[in-house]
Amino acid sequence: MTVRIGVIGTGMIGQQHIHRLDTLVPGAAVTAVTDHDGEVAARVADGLDHDVTVHPDGFALIKDPEVDAVVVTSWGPTHAEFVLAAIGEGKHVFCEKPLATTQEDTLRIIEAEVAHGSRLVQVGFMRRYDAAYRAMKQTIADGAIGAPLVFYSGHRNPDVPAAYTREMAIVDTAVHDFDVARWLLDAEITAISVIAPRSNRHGLGRGEAEDLQDPLLMTIETSTGAVICCETSVNIRYGYDIRGEVVGEDGTVSLADRGLVQVRTAGTAAVGVPGDFASRFHAAFDVELTEWVAEVAAGSPLSGPSSWDGYASAAVCDAGVEALQQGRRVSVDLVEQPALYR
Amino acid sequence: MTVRIGVIGTGMIGQQHIHRLDTLVPGAAVTAVTDHDGEVAARVADGLDHDVTVHPDGFALIKDPEVDAVVVTSWGPTHAEFVLAAIGEGKHVFCEKPLATTQEDTLRIIEAEVAHGSRLVQVGFMRRYDAAYRAMKQTIADGAIGAPLVFYSGHRNPDVPAAYTREMAIVDTAVHDFDVARWLLDAEITAISVIAPRSNRHGLGRGEAEDLQDPLLMTIETSTGAVICCETSVNIRYGYDIRGEVVGEDGTVSLADRGLVQVRTAGTAAVGVPGDFASRFHAAFDVELTEWVAEVAAGSPLSGPSSWDGYASAAVCDAGVEALQQGRRVSVDLVEQPALYR
Amino acid sequence: MTVRIGVIGTGMIGQQHIHRLDTLVPGAAVTAVTDHDGEVAARVADGLDHDVTVHPDGFALIKDPEVDAVVVTSWGPTHAEFVLAAIGEGKHVFCEKPLATTQEDTLRIIEAEVAHGSRLVQVGFMRRYDAAYRAMKQTIADGAIGAPLVFYSGHRNPDVPAAYTREMAIVDTAVHDFDVARWLLDAEITAISVIAPRSNRHGLGRGEAEDLQDPLLMTIETSTGAVICCETSVNIRYGYDIRGEVVGEDGTVSLADRGLVQVRTAGTAAVGVPGDFASRFHAAFDVELTEWVAEVAAGSPLSGPSSWDGYASAAVCDAGVEALQQGRRVSVDLVEQPALYR
Amino acid sequence: MTVRIGVIGTGMIGQQHIHRLDTLVPGAAVTAVTDHDGEVAARVADGLDHDVTVHPDGFALIKDPEVDAVVVTSWGPTHAEFVLAAIGEGKHVFCEKPLATTQEDTLRIIEAEVAHGSRLVQVGFMRRYDAAYRAMKQTIADGAIGAPLVFYSGHRNPDVPAAYTREMAIVDTAVHDFDVARWLLDAEITAISVIAPRSNRHGLGRGEAEDLQDPLLMTIETSTGAVICCETSVNIRYGYDIRGEVVGEDGTVSLADRGLVQVRTAGTAAVGVPGDFASRFHAAFDVELTEWVAEVAAGSPLSGPSSWDGYASAAVCDAGVEALQQGRRVSVDLVEQPALYR
Ligand SMILES: [Mg+2]
Ligand SMILES: [Mg+2]
Ligand SMILES: [Mg+2]
Ligand SMILES: [Mg+2]
Repeated sequence: MTVRIGVIGTGMIGQQHIHRLDTLVPGAAVTAVTDHDGEVAARVADGLDHDVTVHPDGFALIKDPEVDAVVVTSWGPTHAEFVLAAIGEGKHVFCEKPLATTQEDTLRIIEAEVAHGSRLVQVGFMRRYDAAYRAMKQTIADGAIGAPLVFYSGHRNPDVPAAYTREMAIVDTAVHDFDVARWLLDAEITAISVIAPRSNRHGLGRGEAEDLQDPLLMTIETSTGAVICCETSVNIRYGYDIRGEVVGEDGTVSLADRGLVQVRTAGTAAVGVPGDFASRFHAAFDVELTEWVAEVAAGSPLSGPSSWDGYASAAVCDAGVEALQQGRRVSVDLVEQPALYR
Repeated sequence: MTVRIGVIGTGMIGQQHIHRLDTLVPGAAVTAVTDHDGEVAARVADGLDHDVTVHPDGFALIKDPEVDAVVVTSWGPTHAEFVLAAIGEGKHVFCEKPLATTQEDTLRIIEAEVAHGSRLVQVGFMRRYDAAYRAMKQTIADGAIGAPLVFYSGHRNPDVPAAYTREMAIVDTAVHDFDVARWLLDAEITAISVIAPRSNRHGLGRGEAEDLQDPLLMTIETSTGAVICCETSVNIRYGYDIRGEVVGEDGTVSLADRGLVQVRTAGTAAVGVPGDFASRFHAAFDVELTEWVAEVAAGSPLSGPSSWDGYASAAVCDAGVEALQQGRRVSVDLVEQPALYR
Repeated sequence: MTVRIGVIGTGMIGQQHIHRLDTLVPGAAVTAVTDHDGEVAARVADGLDHDVTVHPDGFALIKDPEVDAVVVTSWGPTHAEFVLAAIGEGKHVFCEKPLATTQEDTLRIIEAEVAHGSRLVQVGFMRRYDAAYRAMKQTIADGAIGAPLVFYSGHRNPDVPAAYTREMAIVDTAVHDFDVARWLLDAEITAISVIAPRSNRHGLGRGEAEDLQDPLLMTIETSTGAVICCETSVNIRYGYDIRGEVVGEDGTVSLADRGLVQVRTAGTAAVGVPGDFASRFHAAFDVELTEWVAEVAAGSPLSGPSSWDGYASAAVCDAGVEALQQGRRVSVDLVEQPALYR
Repeated sequence: MTVRIGVIGTGMIGQQHIHRLDTLVPGAAVTAVTDHDGEVAARVADGLDHDVTVHPDGFALIKDPEVDAVVVTSWGPTHAEFVLAAIGEGKHVFCEKPLATTQEDTLRIIEAEVAHGSRLVQVGFMRRYDAAYRAMKQTIADGAIGAPLVFYSGHRNPDVPAAYTREMAIVDTAVHDFDVARWLLDAEITAISVIAPRSNRHGLGRGEAEDLQDPLLMTIETSTGAVICCETSVNIRYGYDIRGEVVGEDGTVSLADRGLVQVRTAGTAAVGVPGDFASRFHAAFDVELTEWVAEVAAGSPLSGPSSWDGYASAAVCDAGVEALQQGRRVSVDLVEQPALYR
């Protein structure tokens, strides 16, 4: 049985997901698209080798009886209303992060999903589908390093666009570290402090754009007592380098270097570091959608990131921004977790 | 346009390729199958979620007008006749290695393909589709190490079945090293010597099976003067470990270790080594069939391993077996290469 | 010209330094020893292959005209008085850390040395003599990574003795990280926060000994704006593993793994991690004393860690202990630096 | 008790050894020197900070009653006569490689030493004192990889002087690989084949100097059945890189990369490779002389490379040169080993 999918938002990530669903993901077919710019949606639809309905808006797409499940890849502030509409129709919805741009909206989604009685929402935290992070989690589960005590998470990008603001280092960049840390450590985040070291010169004097406080270093407490040390370095020219080490009682596990070949030239032995987000995580996106479609097709419970995960990471982001702006430790106080998410 | 594929031979590798073609490879659909054991073919067909014609034999399958292209995954000795029949029908045929079990048969295939006037045959040397080997070839092409002078190729398996004979270390195992070496170095192999070091105890006293001469070390000369040093270690318990280093004039390039995580425990910092063939090369198989289907669908010239590659590697295998059995250097004398393969 | 050295304190580290000075260090000879346990001093003297004067106490040794320079390896609380006495005699004195057990005493030493008018004191922060740390500092100096912004320093021991208290993780263990960070970053430490993650079970229930808060994670600010993230894990069974990474504007530099061989067995490729302090740093001790003796012999200005470094690290330790005990960020306020130390 | 040492030959390596013996090696003192160029010897003697007798020739030095043991670092063709003279005086003699320039002379030395009745001669194969090779040998001895079956030894230099001839790749360069292989594998070499791959352009057109056949690849058989694959690449610009991997029945052990720091810049994560011989092996020289002096001082049996090792490696070199010149496998036939060397 093929899962017929409607995609809301046909920008870059939307087009990539459409391509994945159509060509790589078994059991999926894109049957409907829409975009706030109808011409873009029409052009994307024309580019496909099969018929696709172009809807005037996301709400119409969600109601389309030829759409079994919805993918939301529109502009962030529109996510919540489309997710809520999908829940209203009782349809599965895969929503790129963020689930919503306010904690309040993530809580409204949780409320609606709980009222529905089963999980319908998955949030696009794709790191959970990355083979290296999975090997890291498995190593912990195997007991190889004892209980996890500290997690270092380094999020390094070569550069960021002019529109990138200092808060985005938390809500756009570190949010991935928050989610993967919660998942790796099987813990909720309870407090966060942010410190801004001396600024990287590459983040200063950016024309019209504001000077960045980059890097940031965050000390993050969790419900198990494990502590997360998260670095964002978003202008560190050398590469798109996602670092991670979990320090346990008996040993540690780290993300390994990823070069496929080692080159010995000019006095060094070197392996490559990824240059951008896509080359680092494209396989994780493939796995993410493949597993989601398989679970939707089978009607089995969703195992991916939930509305709760969307809410919890939003709460950490809010606390992180406050900690950054006010220069102090900020607690993260979550509502009680509904049974649906346990 | 979907390429409709008939698969001859529904054993393990056949079933894996059917799964790949049906679910992962864009633009492909398996429409027909056959096997020398008709019940197996029928069972495999039943297991699919769409209709498939079960043919009484490969020849009938090849003639099926609903079959655009053929995949041969039957028993080795049957390969040549199916490939020739496909050429006779003017259909593309992907043939798992070996292309044929004798040099003579590979030459008959070349003759038929040349008479046809364009390439129809691709041989399943999947290493050319492995990302690490491709990075290695790209590094050489970039001039980073100067001209390649020596290629070390280590082919290490944890163990082999009882039926494995000492000649299989050459014709079944090292044949992959021969092909990838020819491709990496852009050279033909011209001579081979084989030396058998002290035998690994794990290859001795194998019940009914013969004692193995394992490892083998081969010194292989090529048309450019580059020399290949090829090791087969087929009982080296620690893992399925494919090693490779190209030594150039200015530097070297090697296949990197592949562990996704590094674990620091009990006095060591360790990364994992693959445990078996499938985990090392499954992605290469995916890419191999994906690129083949794309080229077939587009009607573009085939870029994968050709009949000529099948012939040349068979010639090296024959020389290697002779060198092993007679304990001397054996020349590889190829026929003149038809223009079709240049 | 041989530098004649008197050693105060003939315990384990004292005996090691005597051995170094006598056999490995060019231009040095141990001519006098003393210990609070005179029998131990006598026994150590007897074990040497040349004559050595055994003094009743450190003050007598310092005054001995056959002693050109003094090495202090006695119990920590006695360091200050011996260093002050050596300065009083105008003799060079190498003092194992700590320079003194209170900030006040380190300031008294600074005062005395400034009054003397030239540097006489060197403190035993041996990491500055470790080849790997020196390569790290050189990499920064070369501009390879841009300005340093963050320094991760991981201080990991397999275990600690029963007498080890939680404050010792700062004053005994992390003090090395403080000093090497100041030196690498060419900066003073200005504030410190300490957080205690979930405790390692190996530090709990230690018989008569108190439960440890282990690991500790410290966030440390500096005069240049660079931030230090320092971890102490003193029961992390897997090895004595000193980790370090300096994150700059353009790249990073880390201490490399130190295994001499890589072993591929049982599914892994592994290098060794040092098992104890001695195997990690013995060469640094050799270099430290060799360079000190060479500078003393030549009468050239001392380049090693100074009284100021001893004072500054003591001040950081005091702030660190306060930060740990009170759970808050504590400033480090240093006196004005005398010109002698600039 | 100090071992008083006379050094014959005060060229570069002689001066380095004098410095080592005088300053680093416990229990040694250089008391006499000589050189075929008396002025050089006198100048070297003047440069020392203690009295040294300058002898007119090596024979006079050997007879000097103030000389307990002799170090021979003169021109290769003079080695044999000085070693024989030292044996004649019953004095220990450390001789840089080669022990002699002909097999015949090495046999004369063996004869004289056997007649003397105990070992007096040690040959300067310093790799046996390198910590990494020792860890490799220990790993084998521990049984971690099973019985050793293949040893890859890669000897890579960035360049060679104009006077370097193609035979020197064997007698000057690979001789170190031969000795360390014999020692690692605990086996004698029984046959050698040499193949010259396509030549590195850096070895061609060297002005007055002959074109080099570089690299060379040698296949070497041993008494245990283990096979050695030895590569010399003496113009491979990237570094002075000594590679080694022993392949056993269950796993392998390799010399690890040696960089002290890892630098992440410009798309790569890199460690350094040594640039020259001295930086790679200086520590091995220190250990070599230290252990030799300790054994001489203690009167304990010598454990270092013996006259037999000098003979056996000379025999392999002779066979290697013949194999290279004649393009065929050449056997190495050793005389029966005297009991003294077992
Ligand atoms: Mg699909
Ligand atoms: Mg398909
Ligand atoms: Mg000394
Ligand atoms: Mg000495």
